[in-house]
Amino acid sequence: MKTDRILMAHGSGGSMSQQLIDDVFKKAWNNPYLSAMLDGALLDLPPGRVAMTTDSFVITPLFFPGGAIGKLSICGTVNDLVACGAKPLFLSTAMIIEEGLPLSDLHKIVDSMARTARKARICLVTGDTKVVERGSADGIFINTTGIGVIPSGIDYRPSRIKDGDVVMVTGPVGDHGLAVLAQREGLRFATPALSDCAPLGVIGRVLEKYGGEVKCMRDPTRGGLATVLNELARQSGHGILVEGGKIPVSPVVQGACDMMGLDPLYMANEGKMVVITAPRQAAEIIRDLRQLSEASGSAIIGEVRLEPRQMVLLQTELGAQRILAMLEGEHLPRIC
Amino acid sequence: MKTDRILMAHGSGGSMSQQLIDDVFKKAWNNPYLSAMLDGALLDLPPGRVAMTTDSFVITPLFFPGGAIGKLSICGTVNDLVACGAKPLFLSTAMIIEEGLPLSDLHKIVDSMARTARKARICLVTGDTKVVERGSADGIFINTTGIGVIPSGIDYRPSRIKDGDVVMVTGPVGDHGLAVLAQREGLRFATPALSDCAPLGVIGRVLEKYGGEVKCMRDPTRGGLATVLNELARQSGHGILVEGGKIPVSPVVQGACDMMGLDPLYMANEGKMVVITAPRQAAEIIRDLRQLSEASGSAIIGEVRLEPRQMVLLQTELGAQRILAMLEGEHLPRIC
Repeated sequence: MKTDRILMAHGSGGSMSQQLIDDVFKKAWNNPYLSAMLDGALLDLPPGRVAMTTDSFVITPLFFPGGAIGKLSICGTVNDLVACGAKPLFLSTAMIIEEGLPLSDLHKIVDSMARTARKARICLVTGDTKVVERGSADGIFINTTGIGVIPSGIDYRPSRIKDGDVVMVTGPVGDHGLAVLAQREGLRFATPALSDCAPLGVIGRVLEKYGGEVKCMRDPTRGGLATVLNELARQSGHGILVEGGKIPVSPVVQGACDMMGLDPLYMANEGKMVVITAPRQAAEIIRDLRQLSEASGSAIIGEVRLEPRQMVLLQTELGAQRILAMLEGEHLPRIC
Repeated sequence: MKTDRILMAHGSGGSMSQQLIDDVFKKAWNNPYLSAMLDGALLDLPPGRVAMTTDSFVITPLFFPGGAIGKLSICGTVNDLVACGAKPLFLSTAMIIEEGLPLSDLHKIVDSMARTARKARICLVTGDTKVVERGSADGIFINTTGIGVIPSGIDYRPSRIKDGDVVMVTGPVGDHGLAVLAQREGLRFATPALSDCAPLGVIGRVLEKYGGEVKCMRDPTRGGLATVLNELARQSGHGILVEGGKIPVSPVVQGACDMMGLDPLYMANEGKMVVITAPRQAAEIIRDLRQLSEASGSAIIGEVRLEPRQMVLLQTELGAQRILAMLEGEHLPRIC
C-alpha cells in the first residue's frame, strides 16, 4: 500500500509495520544488529562497568535552527553516557508517532539520527514503533536508551567532589533554549539563534586521560546551568560559588534574555558540559578542552567550597553574592 | 506545591521534577542504582553476551481486566529479553505524561511496575519523565528498555530452525487482545475476559537446561500468533505447518471472536511464548512447561518443513490446508 503519511496500520505489528521497518529504519541505520531482526539486539560488550541511561524527546517544533528531534534524540542520550564517564556504544530507539505524520518528515528524522549516531560513534541496534490516533500525540515522540562502558580509573560520581575543586563549563550557555523559543514564537534576531545540539563524546575522550583529576561531569539540559549546579551541590553535600562575569553567554542569548526577562542560567543546553576537576591540573584541562571545536568556549566559572552546604552562590560583577536556586515552576515547556 | 494532578512544571527538570522523582518513583522503586541519582545507572554485568530490547506502551485504556499499563510495560520488555534467551537484569523506564493525569493514577501505575519487576527479578535502574500539554498525549505513554545476559550455550536465533523441528505455544492465545477490546467497548461475557499479561522469566529458566535443543522463542504480541509464525518462517527460510485444532483458545475468546468476526490467531498476547525445539526432547520440554502455572496450557501445534519456504500453512480440523498470512492492515489499535 502506497501512502505518504503514517497510518494506524504502520503500528499494527503486521505487514505494514514490517514494510516501514524495511523501507525507513533498516535503510537508514543499516547494521548487522538491526538486520538480525530479533526481539532484541545481541551485543558483545568490552569489559568494564556498564552505564545505562534513557531519555524521551517531546520537543516542539520538531525542526529548529541548529537541530531537529532526530539529532537531539541521539545527542541527549550520548551526552548522558559521556557525563557518566562512559564510552557510548549502543542505542535503542522507540518512536511514538501520531497518525498522519508525513513520511517525508519521518525520513528526515531517521536520516539525521543516522548521521548523528555515526558522528557520535554509537550504533542504533534495536527499536520499536507505535502509532497513535491523530490528536493522541503531537507529531512524534522519540525515546533513546544508551549503554556504554566506563574505562577503568574513571569515576564521575558527585560524592568525589571536594572543597577547592574547580567548576568549568565547556562553552556559552542558553543557546538551545533560545533557538527553540525563537522558532516557536517567530522571533528574529540580527544574529540567528542556533541550538548548540551536539554529541560530546570527544570531551569524554579528552578528559579520560586525566583519570581521577576529573571529579564529575553533567550536561545542563532542562533547567539549565543553575539547576545542574544545584543538583551537584546537593549530591556532593558541598557549596558551589560561581562568578556571574565568568559564565560565558553569547551576545544574542544575553540580548534576547534581557529583552524577554529570561535568565540564560536557566535556559536549556544540548551541547555543553559542566565539569568539576581537582585544582592541580585544571589549567591543562581547560587548555585541552579549548582545543576542541565542541568546547572552544570553555571557561572556569567558579569553585567548590565547604559552605554553604548543598547550595549555589552567584557572585555578581559588582561583588555581591546571592543564592542561585534550582529552577522553580516551569521555564520553557517541551524544550527537549 | 501541593497538587493532585500532573502539572507542566513536573516536567521542567527543576524542583518539581525532583519532588516527583522523590515522592513517586524513588519511594516505589527504591534501590541503590536509582538512589545514586546520576544521569545514568552504573551496572556490573556478569560475563556473557548482552541482549538489549526496547518497547513503548501506548495502550488504551490504562487499566484493563488482568493488567494495566504499568504491569504491561514490565512484562513486555522482560518477555522480549526472555525470547532472546537472556536472563533479564536491568530496566530503564521513560514516561511521557499528559498534563492533568491524576497523581493517584501515576502512583497506581508506578506501584504495579514495582510489584511486577520484583516478580520478574529485574531492577528498575534509571528513568526519565516528560510532561506534555493536555491534548498532546493520551494519559501516559511508558517506554521500558531492558538488558539481560545470555547464558553460554543458549542461541535462539531463527537461523537455527530446521526441517522437522516442533512448534509449541505456551497456552491459549488471544486473551490479552480480547480483554482490552472488551474493556474498551464495554462488552460483557459470562466468563470475564482477562489479559494474560505476565512476566515469563520462569519459562526461560526451564528451557535453559535444554541448551541447543531449543531453537527459538518469540512472544506473540501485536499481530498475534499468526504474525509471529510468519516472522519465524521468513527469518528461518523454512515453512511452518500448524494444525488449527491443536492451537489452544479459551472458550470465551473463541466465542467472542466468532461473534465479532475476529480471528484469535491475530489477537495480541502478553503472557505467551511460541517455542520451536528439535524433535528429540520435545515431549520432555512440553511436560516441563506444563508444570509451570505460566505455561500450564502449553501445546504442540505444528512443525517446521522445508516447503513452502517462508510461509505458514494452517491445517483445518477437516484436513484442508490454507495459507496463514501475516496480519494485513490494522486489527486492534493501541493494544500494547
